[in-house]
Amino acid sequence: MPLKSTGLLAATALASAAVLAAGPALAQDTIDTEHHQVHVTTVAEGLAHPWAIALMPDGRFLVTERDDGRLRIGDADGSLSDPVEGVPEVFRFEGETPRSQGGLFDVKLHPQFAENQLVYLSFSEPTERGASVSIIRGQLVEENGTARLEEVEAIFQMQEEDQDSSGLHFGGRMAFHPQDDHLFLSIGDRRNISRAQDSEDQAGSILRMTPDGEAPEDNPEFEEEANEYLFTMGHRNVQALAFDPATAELWVADHGPEGGDEINHVRAGENYGWPFITGGEDYSGAPIGVGLEHEGMVSPIHVFEDTVAPSGLAFYQGDQFGNWQGDMLIGGLAGQALVRVRIADGVVVEEEWMLEELERRIRDVEVAEDGSVWLITEHEDGEVLRLTSEAPS
Amino acid sequence: MPLKSTGLLAATALASAAVLAAGPALAQDTIDTEHHQVHVTTVAEGLAHPWAIALMPDGRFLVTERDDGRLRIGDADGSLSDPVEGVPEVFRFEGETPRSQGGLFDVKLHPQFAENQLVYLSFSEPTERGASVSIIRGQLVEENGTARLEEVEAIFQMQEEDQDSSGLHFGGRMAFHPQDDHLFLSIGDRRNISRAQDSEDQAGSILRMTPDGEAPEDNPEFEEEANEYLFTMGHRNVQALAFDPATAELWVADHGPEGGDEINHVRAGENYGWPFITGGEDYSGAPIGVGLEHEGMVSPIHVFEDTVAPSGLAFYQGDQFGNWQGDMLIGGLAGQALVRVRIADGVVVEEEWMLEELERRIRDVEVAEDGSVWLITEHEDGEVLRLTSEAPS
Repeated sequence: MPLKSTGLLAATALASAAVLAAGPALAQDTIDTEHHQVHVTTVAEGLAHPWAIALMPDGRFLVTERDDGRLRIGDADGSLSDPVEGVPEVFRFEGETPRSQGGLFDVKLHPQFAENQLVYLSFSEPTERGASVSIIRGQLVEENGTARLEEVEAIFQMQEEDQDSSGLHFGGRMAFHPQDDHLFLSIGDRRNISRAQDSEDQAGSILRMTPDGEAPEDNPEFEEEANEYLFTMGHRNVQALAFDPATAELWVADHGPEGGDEINHVRAGENYGWPFITGGEDYSGAPIGVGLEHEGMVSPIHVFEDTVAPSGLAFYQGDQFGNWQGDMLIGGLAGQALVRVRIADGVVVEEEWMLEELERRIRDVEVAEDGSVWLITEHEDGEVLRLTSEAPS
Repeated sequence: MPLKSTGLLAATALASAAVLAAGPALAQDTIDTEHHQVHVTTVAEGLAHPWAIALMPDGRFLVTERDDGRLRIGDADGSLSDPVEGVPEVFRFEGETPRSQGGLFDVKLHPQFAENQLVYLSFSEPTERGASVSIIRGQLVEENGTARLEEVEAIFQMQEEDQDSSGLHFGGRMAFHPQDDHLFLSIGDRRNISRAQDSEDQAGSILRMTPDGEAPEDNPEFEEEANEYLFTMGHRNVQALAFDPATAELWVADHGPEGGDEINHVRAGENYGWPFITGGEDYSGAPIGVGLEHEGMVSPIHVFEDTVAPSGLAFYQGDQFGNWQGDMLIGGLAGQALVRVRIADGVVVEEEWMLEELERRIRDVEVAEDGSVWLITEHEDGEVLRLTSEAPS
């Protein structure tokens, strides 16, 4: 990790396997943003490329570590549990593999978690054909100081013909519909630009399923042979996906190729156009697509001028940052920022890149009941950060 | 395999493991082409997705089977040896995986094979990061009715950072320079359109090395950090590559995306433009690139109107088909044809799709000393075919 110029540095430098279990000393920093002063607290660190965080009703959190496929429980004081048992094996190639993005991805609590303790995990599953983007769920049981998933069920696996061995563009973000509990899953185009426009192919899509992983009968209609899980198609690699709790509308931010990161309002049965519609170009510089409009496809609400590399999305609701009410908070990997976007009447009216001072790749964003914002930073030595309006006591 | 309307059908239907080793009865057919009547003999069959053939000085041949990584020796009467021992393990996913093109690829004899019995094999090698396109060589030793490679040396492996887990676009074709014995290897873009324009990346390139697998000091210069093996860049997935023995010039036919199969005259240090220059579009129908011209890049000599899916290339020299003298013979996979192309003054003056009646995917093409042409057909039950001007006695 590069040297940083913030107060987080000292604590980060102290991170080691020994302090990891005991809970590191909390490092704090204060950062000014347009509307609010933000207190940043390092809740936990020393995580191996963490990917997602889920906030538990009792104030603790679940966090996934992508590379080794670990799930841990964290306390507000920063102590992390041993890996939760019962987590499935993930698809990874050994060693430092910048071209393998596989592993353990998202963690979400069932909407009735308090009653049923069900935890959902998305991950790249090793299969005969290479890998599937899959979902398991299990009941979180804690006793005698250990935690495990019990009655683990494989509730979703990509259809066999769509599994392949690419190590790239898995997607893997999940969200529950805030009203009817349907589960949504993004699957990336597997770094194959042809796949998002094939309605029979689950890659490059957002899927909608029941909480049991079944294809619902009221999924939208595409072409006759279209995959029954398809909710929308034409996505590149969605890793920022969330419902606006105020409206129950689904929104995503999608990685563009070189440039062209975009925000889409996701509506049943639509085609979001990749690789026809894109504001970016290929990494090589070669042009792709037709621009931002194409017949039968939906144009993005917004195309970012600078590269965000969006991962993690939450709509702000709460008392601590009152001037962010209803805004999108988007994690920026390459952008190394928390990007706040306000949309009014389908148009972006504010775009603010916050926390750039931290120089962190932000992988996930969640908003807690108390109005604090929780972030995952994606590094070999990754962190859980918490944003509050006042310095925690 | 679909039913065919030719005389090959009967023998093909009889193929079984039992007759495989003993040598199937030779099936024959006669097909008229523009300049010659061609006698087609099924020399061998029952091969599992064969990929390449190398003609031995004693009239026998070596043939690779891609899927299971087998190398066999065949006799002119069609009998095939047991798999040659000492062939390395190849990178494959199990089952019927249309998106995994990995396995054992090309086989070439060292230019002084008669003296040193050295055989070169290219293949997708399983590595920690997924797969490399690699080359081994070994000495072919036969005794007591069995054949094996001895003193097997791994002479080339892709640099580690370029290895990945994609199952697509390996390239993998080899050729020895007819004068100085340098070895050339094509590596595909691994189905990642950004990689062919990165001169530090061995994917999407043609590499030049010594017969020992070393990077020669007189390789062409690209940018400062360019890979030392690079001979040319900007290729998509070259599987048809050969020297014209009359001129010692290197030529390739490259797979376009959807449409845009092309012929390139390959000259040291040039950039052949993929994905800037292409006559095709993405499989999704989305446009890619800038057309057929771009500054600093070399335009193709020819873009095919119909899809060839070129694999295997030989320049005809010999007495049997005198009116093909000097023509390119290109194997067509999707095209299911042997495509004869005559080039004069850098322009295609004849293009003939031959043997379409056979309905075979043609994977490799070699021309024998006696002027006969040998073909590999790529099917689950693949064949070695021999083309002669007269019916064999």
